[in-house]
Amino acid sequence: MDKFTDLHKRILEFRESRDWKQFHTPENLSKSIVIEAGELLENFQWGDEYKSEDVIDELADIMIYSILLADSLGVDAIKIMEEKIQRNEKRFPVDRVKGNSGKHTRVEIND
Amino acid sequence: MDKFTDLHKRILEFRESRDWKQFHTPENLSKSIVIEAGELLENFQWGDEYKSEDVIDELADIMIYSILLADSLGVDAIKIMEEKIQRNEKRFPVDRVKGNSGKHTRVEIND
Amino acid sequence: MDKFTDLHKRILEFRESRDWKQFHTPENLSKSIVIEAGELLENFQWGDEYKSEDVIDELADIMIYSILLADSLGVDAIKIMEEKIQRNEKRFPVDRVKGNSGKHTRVEIND
Amino acid sequence: MDKFTDLHKRILEFRESRDWKQFHTPENLSKSIVIEAGELLENFQWGDEYKSEDVIDELADIMIYSILLADSLGVDAIKIMEEKIQRNEKRFPVDRVKGNSGKHTRVEIND
Repeated sequence: MDKFTDLHKRILEFRESRDWKQFHTPENLSKSIVIEAGELLENFQWGDEYKSEDVIDELADIMIYSILLADSLGVDAIKIMEEKIQRNEKRFPVDRVKGNSGKHTRVEIND
Repeated sequence: MDKFTDLHKRILEFRESRDWKQFHTPENLSKSIVIEAGELLENFQWGDEYKSEDVIDELADIMIYSILLADSLGVDAIKIMEEKIQRNEKRFPVDRVKGNSGKHTRVEIND
Repeated sequence: MDKFTDLHKRILEFRESRDWKQFHTPENLSKSIVIEAGELLENFQWGDEYKSEDVIDELADIMIYSILLADSLGVDAIKIMEEKIQRNEKRFPVDRVKGNSGKHTRVEIND
Repeated sequence: MDKFTDLHKRILEFRESRDWKQFHTPENLSKSIVIEAGELLENFQWGDEYKSEDVIDELADIMIYSILLADSLGVDAIKIMEEKIQRNEKRFPVDRVKGNSGKHTRVEIND
């Protein structure tokens, strides 16, 4: 089994053995991601000096909740990222956005 | 190559071909995750009815930025999740937290 | 002096006596508001039972940082709210939105 | 009537005439504040250049939702800020924190 599948299984087992699925609605998981994202940002509140260990700890929380949210939506986490990157490759054509942050150079497409 | 490694490679290539690494400091990526998390939550602003497609779109953004943040910190995304789950297995012992949301039942450990 | 003016003065004096203005760029204050907003939401992470005292504590932080941000932008906090309400009165006409949450009923105007 | 009381009245009337109080639970308003805070931060996503007008627009949204949240909790917005500043004056004594961002210098008190 590859590493991601292994991790995914372990995360779901962690939840199942604690009987926490009942709390993990898409809404509650979305709130949880926002809350952890705020804690991540706290590392940069007054500037860009940070303790790697603390940043990594919050980042791991966000990714674990994200995997749980994908599960609660019944979608494959890897697949939805692949599809999004594919859309982004169209929205942000290299010849148009190279070297510019994407904000003002996005190509609006309907897909 | 397994699926996650493949995706990871594609995300970094997407960035490299656009020359966007210069914008992707840990701080800017952390801000980006918070911003996308707010957009995710917008799907649940007035209640729990949501359009799956919109939720999935924001979730994918959060996960992609998370992978980029792990890269900018020089850490392996899968590994930091594994280590966090391991810590959580200790912080939330099954016999203590089963069936309760973790908030009030966390075991404070120093690790 | 009215109550808001009095409070506003006290908040600025609190900052001045601690020499904290140097940290209060619009960006840092915006990050601070997001961080406190995440802490506010934590009270509702797993449902709608909350401790008033904790919610009030976070709300006060958000409002104080908001007043400091208005100050750092050189604008009058009361005035920008008045102007926003005026815009909202146009964007959300009573006969169109009454009894519906605004999301799908907003009138797009250019002003 | 002073300016804040006048504004407060206008905000509540705006809501009442649209029959929106039904959507404004403390939880939904907290989510709304987080969502708007994310939009505020978007102005600083890739750096500290910003358009004042856009920042002001989001800030006004946050403050208006904050006033509505205070109302839904049955508390006086001005009073809870006064009480918080009073607590902060104790938590962050001038002689201890002057010129340092508060993060590492907070005095933990139980009050």
